[in-house]
Amino acid sequence: MNQIPQRLAALRKEMSQRSIDVYMIPTSDFHETEYVGKHFKAREWMSNFSGSAGTLVVAKNEAALWTDGRYFIQAERELKDTGIQLMKMGMEETPLMADYILDHLEEGHALGFDGRVVNTKLAEALHAKIAAKQGVIHCDEDLVGLIWEDRPPLPKEQAFTLDIAYCGVSTGEKLGRLREWMRERTLDVHILTSLDDIAWYLNMRGNDIAGFPVALAYLIVEADRVTCFMDQDKLNEELRERFAKEGITVNDYEAIYDVIPQLDKHAHILMDKGTVNYRITQSLPCGVKINDQRNPSQLWKAIKNDVELQNNRIAHIKDGVAVTKFMYWLKQNIKTMTITEASAAQRLTEFRQEQEHWIDCSFGTISAYNENAAMMHYQADEKTAATLRPEGFLLVDSGGQYFEGTTDITRTFVLGSISERQRRHFTNVLRGMMNLSRAKFLYGCRGMNLDILARQPMWSEGIDYQCGTGHGVGFVLNVHEGPNGFRWKQVPERIDTAVLEAGMVTTIEPGIYLEGEYGIRTENELICRKGVKNEYGQFMEFETITFAPIDLDGIDPTLLSNEEKAWLNAYHQEVYEKLSPYLNEEVCEWLKEYTRAI
Amino acid sequence: MNQIPQRLAALRKEMSQRSIDVYMIPTSDFHETEYVGKHFKAREWMSNFSGSAGTLVVAKNEAALWTDGRYFIQAERELKDTGIQLMKMGMEETPLMADYILDHLEEGHALGFDGRVVNTKLAEALHAKIAAKQGVIHCDEDLVGLIWEDRPPLPKEQAFTLDIAYCGVSTGEKLGRLREWMRERTLDVHILTSLDDIAWYLNMRGNDIAGFPVALAYLIVEADRVTCFMDQDKLNEELRERFAKEGITVNDYEAIYDVIPQLDKHAHILMDKGTVNYRITQSLPCGVKINDQRNPSQLWKAIKNDVELQNNRIAHIKDGVAVTKFMYWLKQNIKTMTITEASAAQRLTEFRQEQEHWIDCSFGTISAYNENAAMMHYQADEKTAATLRPEGFLLVDSGGQYFEGTTDITRTFVLGSISERQRRHFTNVLRGMMNLSRAKFLYGCRGMNLDILARQPMWSEGIDYQCGTGHGVGFVLNVHEGPNGFRWKQVPERIDTAVLEAGMVTTIEPGIYLEGEYGIRTENELICRKGVKNEYGQFMEFETITFAPIDLDGIDPTLLSNEEKAWLNAYHQEVYEKLSPYLNEEVCEWLKEYTRAI
Repeated sequence: MNQIPQRLAALRKEMSQRSIDVYMIPTSDFHETEYVGKHFKAREWMSNFSGSAGTLVVAKNEAALWTDGRYFIQAERELKDTGIQLMKMGMEETPLMADYILDHLEEGHALGFDGRVVNTKLAEALHAKIAAKQGVIHCDEDLVGLIWEDRPPLPKEQAFTLDIAYCGVSTGEKLGRLREWMRERTLDVHILTSLDDIAWYLNMRGNDIAGFPVALAYLIVEADRVTCFMDQDKLNEELRERFAKEGITVNDYEAIYDVIPQLDKHAHILMDKGTVNYRITQSLPCGVKINDQRNPSQLWKAIKNDVELQNNRIAHIKDGVAVTKFMYWLKQNIKTMTITEASAAQRLTEFRQEQEHWIDCSFGTISAYNENAAMMHYQADEKTAATLRPEGFLLVDSGGQYFEGTTDITRTFVLGSISERQRRHFTNVLRGMMNLSRAKFLYGCRGMNLDILARQPMWSEGIDYQCGTGHGVGFVLNVHEGPNGFRWKQVPERIDTAVLEAGMVTTIEPGIYLEGEYGIRTENELICRKGVKNEYGQFMEFETITFAPIDLDGIDPTLLSNEEKAWLNAYHQEVYEKLSPYLNEEVCEWLKEYTRAI
Repeated sequence: MNQIPQRLAALRKEMSQRSIDVYMIPTSDFHETEYVGKHFKAREWMSNFSGSAGTLVVAKNEAALWTDGRYFIQAERELKDTGIQLMKMGMEETPLMADYILDHLEEGHALGFDGRVVNTKLAEALHAKIAAKQGVIHCDEDLVGLIWEDRPPLPKEQAFTLDIAYCGVSTGEKLGRLREWMRERTLDVHILTSLDDIAWYLNMRGNDIAGFPVALAYLIVEADRVTCFMDQDKLNEELRERFAKEGITVNDYEAIYDVIPQLDKHAHILMDKGTVNYRITQSLPCGVKINDQRNPSQLWKAIKNDVELQNNRIAHIKDGVAVTKFMYWLKQNIKTMTITEASAAQRLTEFRQEQEHWIDCSFGTISAYNENAAMMHYQADEKTAATLRPEGFLLVDSGGQYFEGTTDITRTFVLGSISERQRRHFTNVLRGMMNLSRAKFLYGCRGMNLDILARQPMWSEGIDYQCGTGHGVGFVLNVHEGPNGFRWKQVPERIDTAVLEAGMVTTIEPGIYLEGEYGIRTENELICRKGVKNEYGQFMEFETITFAPIDLDGIDPTLLSNEEKAWLNAYHQEVYEKLSPYLNEEVCEWLKEYTRAI
């Protein structure tokens, strides 16, 4: 039963009682986290749209949802009959959300949202915008919370230490670096609310968000003290002891809203308005000076240290073994067994779970058959999952969290016969992936300089994948991590335009998505490293760390240049050498065939 | 005889009389023109460095010259024994010029320069910098002018109308567009000093600068009048009449410095501080509001109209005929005739001069043999020009000004035996040129997104050409024109990062330059045009308009992919078809061989 109209009506009732003309419900927790826990899925509960990104705006008589190219097809389907209009971001004809809000606001009325789930930068921009109509912002109430009766509670999962053998650098050293950096800039207080930065400083991980092993927490770093705000029940004895030894005070999660107003009103505060929520900013004492910039840890944690990189390589071997076992299982059984998108995903997770030091999937596996794969971030559920047939493509985008690192891999498997067009598309996607992988470039290049290497085989045929080519990957953290990435055109919602530095880990994942037909994506992860240094400067290159066969059944070798063929054959040989020690004879035999030179 | 130390001493005497600690001599005329006339070559006269770009800074006991990668080798040679230190721009170890100036300035003393040859943006930045030492700027005298006794006078060449049959749009229409644009932004006055913009609005060309067919002039556009400041003797009867008809008042060249102070002090003034000189800005009445932005004509003139594009194609056929005749002559005579770099350049100019509607070369021909070609912008003079031998490479970068357009082409000719390495390098340069030429890309891309397509074959071997890959080209105007271009990394001295628009003309000219060995460059010009438009957006592509053989004697076909080979063969076939109607039988026969499929 479609409950959306009824929920919208309930929300509008609350709105009208407060002279709120427009209520905005973004996809966020209190930390601007990309993928949010169940408690925070207010936007999904209000709209039925289940994608990971999108903002719902409810006006008095209309409602609209903005999302990006990854979700156009999915959103169209999920918003059907809700009365909510889909706003395709990045399309010429799509109005900006801020303009839409302004259009639906009466003079002197309010725009409402929960100030804890909207970052300061966005809130201030909206505030400036609606000033044109003497509009005000109402942000100290969570109206969805008022009407959502069976809302899931905040998570209560245990946190744990990520050993120095995995993460390489101690909390003391990381905080020392930060304090030195703040001293040089005469900054007194650092307010940090992004969960991965906090986890990185504290060498702490948790289980509060599926796929993203962190604990809900805020952090305030000053010259003489560090305070971590989190549910204290989540701390085990070992963490308590370590924090005490390292001088980290722990306070309750919600206490931050009491502590912030008590900060010295002359303090110079380092905080990223793009991540710190508006309620926190509104709680600051008058007079503080905000130094608004990216958290320095954003870059520091993106440049993995040698211990992390070495562990990462180990994680990827484990992950490759799981994916290879899955591919063998799939190819062996596709003709004889009933396999659905969901059961295939489940089987792959089981292969991953067999691996030592496995923590979790790094995101919900995308297992998408034929036309479902045209939806870039399709999520099959058990009820509606398609049954695989021995023909066409199965696209599987998945990853694991291990103590040794976070993985993200996509392979598109050929289940039986495919058309010539499908084969050409599969080959072109592979060519894009390979051509960017083997790039050599001068230090100083950003993803936007290199992106076209991956996109060109598609653009040459008048096709585009309407998303970035790749993203940074965290270390036992968020599978999407800035500031590195590959994208030809800057987009406001992503921070991924940094200069590529040695030690950064990035995915390369071009694709072709044909609505109603099929989707193809091939994705590896790569470490950026230094190459030759000579009179021209420092050259950079990539080391591929993802190892799993790329389905030879999909490739038309006549479309590959000699250089491309050589890259593929060398890659497959390495796949065999790296994975075969962990596979039984039967799978090895099969893998030999599927990594043969072509 | 090296006169530089003596000239520096004379300048320092003038400086010390005025408490000027540091005197700056840029490469500019009063209009921020890239290539300057003889009267304005103060920097060359003071330093002996003859490159087209560079700034000399003379301190009390030291002097230094900043120039970019194109000129490192040449500057090193020309600055020998002058006592002037070479500052290689873009190198890590090179100090910024502003820092150097500050270091050599005593508290409260002056930085001096001729305010007419320094743009406002640079002057203001220097002013802000030296404020740290209570420094002042002395900019109302031209100290070099005081000591340069036999200085060439300002040019007195005739100006002329570029007929509407060539330029497509009338002055009235262009000024109407500007005024409409200004009205929408409530701007009252436009001060325009860039010579190509003025020539474009007025459909006027001149002969004041070698290779750049413009007349020295300033322009002030208001809602009810247009004033052109220029030497009135340069106007022929036809121009006088047309200007009178179009309501354009003509005033004396130097009168602008008298008129500017009389502008309405409440005026909103549109001007580009990056091009308007500091003396003009200093002359403005107090109270005016400056709207500092790029001149709108920068983009308007870069997007060529259909008449211009059609003429441009014609100009390139003429130019290709001249280059092909030259190539034939060179290949026929290299073994038997004494040919020098200079005499070869002269012969090429003669072939161009034979073409109808020829005006001038579009810049000084670069004719550089073997190691001389490693200097990117080497200029042979008759005395020192190398004699060609039947071996190695001759690099010729040249172009013409015709009524139908401006051309710029580089070919590297194989004069006899070359090494395997030379052949590989020649082929890689060609690959870079071809790969960018055949790019297809979504609308919105800038040069920095595409640049790597040209650079990749070089970067793959750890080689870089330390300059942009290509630049916009004017229409019967400057051979270097913004705002389009190809470059991977933004540099402050060039405006070439614009979105590529249909109608823009840009060069593609990758190269390899090995100091002391050889230089290779292959350059075509291309029109950007619309390709397929579909659900992904508007695709863009290039149309190559330069037609002349690329020397097959330099190519190793085994290094070319099938796609590259196909491009080259199709290109050469087009070269033959387009040029052969204008060549005699003998040359045709030869051209057939040199455009054969490989």
